[in-house]
Amino acid sequence: MIVALDVGGTSMKGAVLSPGLDRVAALRRPTPRGEAAVDAVLETVAELVEQAGTAQAVGLAVPGIVDDERGVAAWSENIGWRDVPFRDLIAERTGLPVAVGHDVRAGGTAEIRLGAAQGARNSLVIPIGTGIAAAMVIDGHLCVGNGYAGEIGHMSVGVDEPCVCGGTGCLEAVASAAAVGRRYARRTGRDATAGEVAALVSEGDADAAAIWAETIGFLGTALAAATALVAPEVIVIGGGLSRAGDLLLGPLSDDLAGRLTFHRRPRLTIATFGDEAGCVGAGLWARDLLERR
Amino acid sequence: MIVALDVGGTSMKGAVLSPGLDRVAALRRPTPRGEAAVDAVLETVAELVEQAGTAQAVGLAVPGIVDDERGVAAWSENIGWRDVPFRDLIAERTGLPVAVGHDVRAGGTAEIRLGAAQGARNSLVIPIGTGIAAAMVIDGHLCVGNGYAGEIGHMSVGVDEPCVCGGTGCLEAVASAAAVGRRYARRTGRDATAGEVAALVSEGDADAAAIWAETIGFLGTALAAATALVAPEVIVIGGGLSRAGDLLLGPLSDDLAGRLTFHRRPRLTIATFGDEAGCVGAGLWARDLLERR
Repeated sequence: MIVALDVGGTSMKGAVLSPGLDRVAALRRPTPRGEAAVDAVLETVAELVEQAGTAQAVGLAVPGIVDDERGVAAWSENIGWRDVPFRDLIAERTGLPVAVGHDVRAGGTAEIRLGAAQGARNSLVIPIGTGIAAAMVIDGHLCVGNGYAGEIGHMSVGVDEPCVCGGTGCLEAVASAAAVGRRYARRTGRDATAGEVAALVSEGDADAAAIWAETIGFLGTALAAATALVAPEVIVIGGGLSRAGDLLLGPLSDDLAGRLTFHRRPRLTIATFGDEAGCVGAGLWARDLLERR
Repeated sequence: MIVALDVGGTSMKGAVLSPGLDRVAALRRPTPRGEAAVDAVLETVAELVEQAGTAQAVGLAVPGIVDDERGVAAWSENIGWRDVPFRDLIAERTGLPVAVGHDVRAGGTAEIRLGAAQGARNSLVIPIGTGIAAAMVIDGHLCVGNGYAGEIGHMSVGVDEPCVCGGTGCLEAVASAAAVGRRYARRTGRDATAGEVAALVSEGDADAAAIWAETIGFLGTALAAATALVAPEVIVIGGGLSRAGDLLLGPLSDDLAGRLTFHRRPRLTIATFGDEAGCVGAGLWARDLLERR
């Protein structure tokens, strides 16, 4: 049995998985803030290990800046922890081998090995939700960069909009699911989620169409820059915004194609796994540990 | 003995190197165009092998789109070849193990293993000459992307300027050494090389200072995007423009720092190897082949 836990800014999703990664048990609970979050992670993992009975390895996915190689959660603004050596802490507590990594890279691992990016040696998996980040595979290697790689959400798209990170013009500030709703509300005075904006586009709402077209342009700008640099064969879009499906993929593929010349043209597609991707990816990492032994 | 050949758009630089990579013999000759270039490469390598007497491996660096993993020169607009399987052709002709790769990645290999990027597991080595491209190392891995990785010169910096690639606003179109001279001439009606523009900046020429400041902004835009995505610890600038030294590095470091927030801040530095980097890198690849046996 394998224990997997995906810690999000809002909730933690845990699972006991069979060696074939079938879900034997699952739990979901809120993520506390600060030091309490560290204790909650350790407690939850211990509970899942006990529940599993014969757990052989643990996989943990956490947000923020994460050094997958050292198994350390370096920083998360949302949760408020810093330099937590989860790999060592969990190994000490459970006596099991532990894999720790970034939640986006965990989700990316699921898509790359079992989902929409399967078979590609060069890919980007980009969840677009409250935030935007990328899991990046080049030459078959999942890039970590000491936890700093793949921050496509904090790449400027040349627009004068402040970002929560302190920067200006970040992709996340204008093209996250949250930003799409915010920009629509600012334009119209009417609150809407990104999903509602997408629905309004389909109904012919001109304001929604304008916001959507701008969003496509921002995403196209960032994807073109990423394509020049890392040359993915496939780009997988996940997260809340990906629920728009072809309304997103169609115009985004066209926009991106219009920005590329000799570059390799990536195929755009929607993620296979929903919000279970992080848990599946953490489970895959844990299984890798066992197979390496 | 190792034979190394660096094929540029204008000239080919060949060398016979000792196992310690000391230069025992060297040659330089013009690069012909089209099919003749393929023959010239094969001839020159054969000559160097004969000259070496006891050559044990060959390293070849070529421009354009190059698949280092298959040893194939996929495309070079400058030279005019397409899908040349150099690794197999040279191995057949010489009976020796052959490493083939991109000239920028060869130069990058020299800087990463023996030069300015030594010791860093995440780095960008960016020659800025007639063109601009990057050798990109992430987690200690030199990224290839089937030959398409590292094309930072063909990333848009959001300006309305046509590029030779057919795109608009590419970094190379406004910030290569050639582009700096071209933009100064357009502004003033006076021809100047990038080196002359740099000298004029030092002398207080206002037009040169304006062109230089814009160039720094374009480079800062692209480096910030690359930093968000691949998180280098060090960025090495090479090529003609790097001869400006601190006049380039000082303001570029400041510009880049102003664009970053939580991102890892890369150290900027000038390349150690001049135009011999490609040959040294090709020699390192050839030596790697021998060590792997």
